[in-house]
Amino acid sequence: MIQKKLLFTPGPLTTSVTVKQTMMQDVGSRDYEFIRTVKEIQNELLKLAHVSREDGYETVLMQGSGTFGIESVISSVIGDNDVLLILSNGAYGERIAKMAIIHKLNHHVVRFEEDEIVTAEATENFLKDHPEVTHIVCIHSETTTGLFNPITEIGAVCKKHNKVFIVDAMSSFGGVEMDMKKMGIDFLVSSSNKCIEGVPGFAFVICKKTELEKAKGQARSLSLGLYDQWAGLVANGQFRFTPPTLSIMAFRQALKELEEEGGVPAREKRYKENKSVLDKGMSELGFKQYLRPEIQGHIITSFLYPDDPDFNFEQFYDKLNNRGFVIYPGKLGKTDAFRIGNIGQIFPEDVKALIAVIKDVM
Amino acid sequence: MIQKKLLFTPGPLTTSVTVKQTMMQDVGSRDYEFIRTVKEIQNELLKLAHVSREDGYETVLMQGSGTFGIESVISSVIGDNDVLLILSNGAYGERIAKMAIIHKLNHHVVRFEEDEIVTAEATENFLKDHPEVTHIVCIHSETTTGLFNPITEIGAVCKKHNKVFIVDAMSSFGGVEMDMKKMGIDFLVSSSNKCIEGVPGFAFVICKKTELEKAKGQARSLSLGLYDQWAGLVANGQFRFTPPTLSIMAFRQALKELEEEGGVPAREKRYKENKSVLDKGMSELGFKQYLRPEIQGHIITSFLYPDDPDFNFEQFYDKLNNRGFVIYPGKLGKTDAFRIGNIGQIFPEDVKALIAVIKDVM
Repeated sequence: MIQKKLLFTPGPLTTSVTVKQTMMQDVGSRDYEFIRTVKEIQNELLKLAHVSREDGYETVLMQGSGTFGIESVISSVIGDNDVLLILSNGAYGERIAKMAIIHKLNHHVVRFEEDEIVTAEATENFLKDHPEVTHIVCIHSETTTGLFNPITEIGAVCKKHNKVFIVDAMSSFGGVEMDMKKMGIDFLVSSSNKCIEGVPGFAFVICKKTELEKAKGQARSLSLGLYDQWAGLVANGQFRFTPPTLSIMAFRQALKELEEEGGVPAREKRYKENKSVLDKGMSELGFKQYLRPEIQGHIITSFLYPDDPDFNFEQFYDKLNNRGFVIYPGKLGKTDAFRIGNIGQIFPEDVKALIAVIKDVM
Repeated sequence: MIQKKLLFTPGPLTTSVTVKQTMMQDVGSRDYEFIRTVKEIQNELLKLAHVSREDGYETVLMQGSGTFGIESVISSVIGDNDVLLILSNGAYGERIAKMAIIHKLNHHVVRFEEDEIVTAEATENFLKDHPEVTHIVCIHSETTTGLFNPITEIGAVCKKHNKVFIVDAMSSFGGVEMDMKKMGIDFLVSSSNKCIEGVPGFAFVICKKTELEKAKGQARSLSLGLYDQWAGLVANGQFRFTPPTLSIMAFRQALKELEEEGGVPAREKRYKENKSVLDKGMSELGFKQYLRPEIQGHIITSFLYPDDPDFNFEQFYDKLNNRGFVIYPGKLGKTDAFRIGNIGQIFPEDVKALIAVIKDVM
């Protein structure tokens, strides 16, 4: 048996015992109870995004990790005559650029420094010279650094210029209030093991039905075909291919617990409290953050390695790990840093405990 | 809480309590203990296939369902100058044909009746007229009907003519002794929720390293890139994208329990006992099997609807379901049938109980 640990990562996260307990019962993938559960999840996700079927929005669940969900959208929605604009300021934007190359999509990449946010202004300027762009994709919470891109402002530019807006809200959805309509988002992608606090196994896409329908017949893979996956779920409530049954049962419970906590606003508040305890504690220990505070989100924070030449991240990580606290390595191109997440079933007192252990091992 | 049920399906299956219990502990995807678990699983899978790294074989785990694993191989391994021959006698062969179309692969499909097996002779005859074929794919246990294709004989033809042999052993691997080398298999694909008796979440590919290496740079999707997934695991033991951590922890426990049961031979024996109890009981109740016994495998059996015009499958299914026994609908093109699986944590006494309930509800 693996030692009980708290995960201060961008996911998979610490989840509640009751979420995990739902997985103690096998369930058939074509069973009515399972089908009902999938439907409940779809409905609940729409509500969390402040949209509804009546408004013309739909939800698709896709097996695999969040990246599978992103690729499902990118490789299904961008037609041969479409042009995708990728707004990139980190590893997750670059990942989408890789997909665009593999799928031979017409695309542009506008790159920003990884310690700067994407701006609506730069996006609009680019569109002036590139009216051929039909779709724009941007990461909300760039986990590479932890910054938040200004999705609402970029969404407004998309709507003004009539572009389809795809948002990778992987590590933010459920931990940040998001109204898809107000934010001008046409496709929002996140995954089961992020701020909803479920276990890994699938991604989900909340999207405008009229745009989803345009993807019919243009998927570039069978498994990741977004339209067909949706059509399959609509036809008989079943997945086309074996779903991660137990992850899905756990996710329904996670949604219930999100509601019991007080919904997204309450969860956002808890995560922000976690972050403020972390900021204060780490600052007192002399750690400096990579990003300037105005663009730093409350999901995950990058801390620079201390000046001390004797600092060894692997040793630091191991010592924390042995005490039951799992942090996350860095992913920056420019500088050495490590990351600490504020999300999952962790509370301000857990962050205090982490700070105490960091103090101890330094 | 969902009622406890026994699943007589082709998967997701009934799993042991101890397998499910491993999921009661969160684990970080970049944590050393998790990385060690992935490595153990890779090693154990090679052993089950009677091959080793020294022999030149490797294992790749892929997020998603079994189909994701199949598509990972089909879309990564068949190069632009290669030609794939698909041997099809059921829905799973047709699924691969769909993939070949979507990925614009050079391919041929040789179709057999769904109540007949693929033959080595027909395969060899086709190759005489089509020397351009480079890769051959065949389903081992065709879950559509439950037949076993003669993989060893087809493998011998592949080796004789120097073709790469890809086998979809989804519902057979772990429940049928398979020696990859002796059977001439270059790529074998199965999934976590079949005869190893884990929970759903990922597929695995056991393959010849020299052939895997040829897939470098020719993936047709980012997520399903087989070579890159393997290279990522080799580089640092980590998945490129979030793995289904808890499904993987459960799978290691499932492998341990397979060994404790006496390995694949013991499991095969139990499944065959399940099947013989099922055959006898269903025959006594007047049910006829779709396939002739010589080609029927011991994984899953298709039973024809009874002659009774009042028989209603949905009602039949519901009544069994309400008593805690989940069977599986049919998938035949030609005739009405339902399916009953013999695999998972079910034992001859469970099959007897199922027969008693079927007798009761008829």
